[in-house]
Amino acid sequence: MDNGHHNGASETAGKPIICKVCRSGGQPLVIEDIEVAPPKEWEVRIKILCTSLCHTDLTFWKIESGPFIAYPRIFGHEAVGIVESIGEHVKELREGDTVVPVFFANCGECRDCKSQKSNVCTKFVDKHYNAMPRDAVGRFKDMKGRPIHHFLFVSSFTEYTVVDVTHVVKIPPPMPIDKACLLSCGVSTGRSFVSNLKSIASVKALLLLLAYNNGWFNETGLGAVWKVAQVEEGSTVAVFGLGAVGLAVAQAAKLRGASKIIGVDLNPEKEDIGRKLGVTDFIDPTTLGDKKISEAIKELTDGGADYCFECIGLTSIVRDAIESSREGWGRTIILGVEGQGNPLSLNCGEMMKGRGVIGSFFGGVKAKSDIPSFAQMYMNKELCLDGFITHHVGFQDINKAFEYMLQGQSLRCIIWVDK
Amino acid sequence: MDNGHHNGASETAGKPIICKVCRSGGQPLVIEDIEVAPPKEWEVRIKILCTSLCHTDLTFWKIESGPFIAYPRIFGHEAVGIVESIGEHVKELREGDTVVPVFFANCGECRDCKSQKSNVCTKFVDKHYNAMPRDAVGRFKDMKGRPIHHFLFVSSFTEYTVVDVTHVVKIPPPMPIDKACLLSCGVSTGRSFVSNLKSIASVKALLLLLAYNNGWFNETGLGAVWKVAQVEEGSTVAVFGLGAVGLAVAQAAKLRGASKIIGVDLNPEKEDIGRKLGVTDFIDPTTLGDKKISEAIKELTDGGADYCFECIGLTSIVRDAIESSREGWGRTIILGVEGQGNPLSLNCGEMMKGRGVIGSFFGGVKAKSDIPSFAQMYMNKELCLDGFITHHVGFQDINKAFEYMLQGQSLRCIIWVDK
Ligand SMILES: NC(=O)c1ccc[n+]([C@@H]2O[C@H](COP(=O)([O-])OP(=O)(O)OC[C@H]3O[C@@H](n4cnc5c(N)ncnc54)[C@H](O)[C@@H]3O)[C@@H](O)[C@H]2O)c1
Ligand SMILES: NC(=O)c1ccc[n+]([C@@H]2O[C@H](COP(=O)([O-])OP(=O)(O)OC[C@H]3O[C@@H](n4cnc5c(N)ncnc54)[C@H](O)[C@@H]3O)[C@@H](O)[C@H]2O)c1
Ligand SMILES: [Zn+2]
Ligand SMILES: [Zn+2]
Ligand SMILES: [Zn+2]
Ligand SMILES: [Zn+2]
Repeated sequence: MDNGHHNGASETAGKPIICKVCRSGGQPLVIEDIEVAPPKEWEVRIKILCTSLCHTDLTFWKIESGPFIAYPRIFGHEAVGIVESIGEHVKELREGDTVVPVFFANCGECRDCKSQKSNVCTKFVDKHYNAMPRDAVGRFKDMKGRPIHHFLFVSSFTEYTVVDVTHVVKIPPPMPIDKACLLSCGVSTGRSFVSNLKSIASVKALLLLLAYNNGWFNETGLGAVWKVAQVEEGSTVAVFGLGAVGLAVAQAAKLRGASKIIGVDLNPEKEDIGRKLGVTDFIDPTTLGDKKISEAIKELTDGGADYCFECIGLTSIVRDAIESSREGWGRTIILGVEGQGNPLSLNCGEMMKGRGVIGSFFGGVKAKSDIPSFAQMYMNKELCLDGFITHHVGFQDINKAFEYMLQGQSLRCIIWVDK
Repeated sequence: MDNGHHNGASETAGKPIICKVCRSGGQPLVIEDIEVAPPKEWEVRIKILCTSLCHTDLTFWKIESGPFIAYPRIFGHEAVGIVESIGEHVKELREGDTVVPVFFANCGECRDCKSQKSNVCTKFVDKHYNAMPRDAVGRFKDMKGRPIHHFLFVSSFTEYTVVDVTHVVKIPPPMPIDKACLLSCGVSTGRSFVSNLKSIASVKALLLLLAYNNGWFNETGLGAVWKVAQVEEGSTVAVFGLGAVGLAVAQAAKLRGASKIIGVDLNPEKEDIGRKLGVTDFIDPTTLGDKKISEAIKELTDGGADYCFECIGLTSIVRDAIESSREGWGRTIILGVEGQGNPLSLNCGEMMKGRGVIGSFFGGVKAKSDIPSFAQMYMNKELCLDGFITHHVGFQDINKAFEYMLQGQSLRCIIWVDK
């Protein structure tokens, strides 16, 4: 790799950088040189240290049409990097900061960012998924000057990328960078809703709720506890899909004292890792014969799980999850991303019996406050991130990360861009 | 009307009763004599005093096929009556008690009935919608001995009916019976989730929540406040359909201190009554031109309503409601009953931005505890039921009640069976 461009921020600031990226689209990724423009106002240019593959990259890499498709593009949205240079007006970040770019914005100023109830920043209403959020223009060009599209406001499969400041979070330096990488998407998504409350006596929970509702702990990870699902001690939980997202859900549900955590996965190899992270019962749907998944879950839970989490990205599984949730109070949380735009078809009669469905990007996490707080919790040994990193590869071997995930061998494969 | 059969309980107890009923199915109802069997064990035979038409009767009266259709049948499920006789094992009710029969069971013993979180009694899993819940047999026969089907476990368009004890609630005698009739379905459904908390300072609400979570007010109407939607002071609310259900939602939302209550109805005559009961903004979708309902609601609410209530029974309106709910935290509550089994088709992308959908029969009301508590609140002048009764007719004019509702003229038309 050409290290000539990495000699510190001052040398490259304000100039285009020529560097290696992975251009892609449904076929193996190709590494080639491109030009990365300097950051404009409210932007930072980041030197990526490591990045990891999330299933959302895979989903959009696989599909061939739809409003989100634009090739050539640079995928990747879980990463850690160093700020190489900053654009005008950027106050909260400096060259040399270790940062995590995040697909979900957090401007800190809009009504959503100011509310404890939402993580859906509304700073930019007409978002441009394939370019920068403010000016709808990309910062990447190939060596012939033709544009290369962005992905999810991050595009981390590159040595350098440009990200809007609303999508960048500073990480405290002692945090190991591969672990920080986990926090930038999948694991945080699965974890957040249950956070780090080890076991909650009812009074303790109520005091926290009291404090939370009164804004006593504004902007801390603890707020996330209540954001998407209030998994109470003794609850039964079903997790559909035991990838990094689903396993983070299982682990967090265990911390919240769930009495039963049922993992559902087509890949029988997920049973072992699942049990290590909190899964108490494992269902491989292919072994059920004529029995429906929902029947199996109802048998295990005396009528249905209190909370069902869809962590796969299939509308048919969302339906299975709802059917598996308990009448009376069952909640289904959709975390999986459906890439084809297939409609989710529900039966109103099933819903009327007290069931609910909630969708969530990033599990309710507010990037700027929650990610540093998760990092701090990791360093305090209050948050465990072990087990999620199954592979490490160098940048040239990035296609291996795709193979591992496609074959169900990996949870997260860390791709070291500088190696 | 033949009053020979109404001379007190002791005379008729244990014997079949010949009385007038309305047989029906898509055409004007016909009054004729039928035979009503004595109550079996766990059942009560009720002399109906008055009954009212709910849109759910109309929905099933109109549709011609599906699993819930069985003709001839006796419709009606909002009513007040006097216990004429009781079957074996019935301890909580006596001959002469004033009661409200209810379509939604409340056995008091199952896991759901014991939980504060659910009103979906699971005592009878294989419910027989067209007959008695325990033995799947009807208690009505025509004068040639042919069976007549029940409806929703109540069948109140008759002088006498037989109802399972899990579907019967005793009403304190000073309660005016037409007002009690309102409590048996639609108005309770709309009201319950917001109950009678006039205005909630945040600390007061938290103390209530504390008490509620600790079971301090077991089994009172106050519990219902938190059951389906926690409409907080200052929230924005959109109500789709201003019938009795929707107006009860609006009225209750006002009591909870909602800052904006948007009523949506095709019938412009609903604006006046809506404004009287709490609606602050009225939308007649036919006047919007090219603008979508959701656009109009987003304009009125700075991005979408916090809570949207579907009180019509159309899946297309559920979709409008979800679209009208705010990204970040919007909740849509389905109260309308879709009778045709049409699937509800949702866009996952819309849901992922923090939106949620919850369905509820009877608005979370637990019949045996909440209805007497609502009645008590009415008598204490803590609950207002004015405005919902728009018409009164005698039994022979029951078809007028159908016409009034079909033409959008009525909210609730009380049908006096003895007149
Ligand atoms: N909501 C968010 O913000 C967010 C964030 C990150 C990831 N995601 C989404 O979450 C989902 C999971 O991501 P991941 O990175 O953990 O993926 P992953 O590939 O690591 O895990 C997916 C798991 O689902 C299993 N699976 C696939 N099809 C199945 C089926 N039909 N039945 C049962 N199991 C099945 C696979 O065997 C695998 O174990 C993806 O849809 C991804 O796009 C969403
Ligand atoms: N969840 C429950 O337990 C429960 C209980 C009672 C009633 N319901 C259901 O609630 C719904 C309302 O019942 P109700 O008795 O109040 O009915 P209603 O007939 O009195 O009111 C319905 C209102 O919706 C309006 N409307 C109809 N189509 C519309 C459209 N496309 N757009 C806008 N407005 C429209 C009508 O003009 C009318 O004002 C029904 O579906 C009924 O079956 C449910
Ligand atoms: Zn914002
Ligand atoms: Zn991701
Ligand atoms: Zn019960
Ligand atoms: Zn009804």
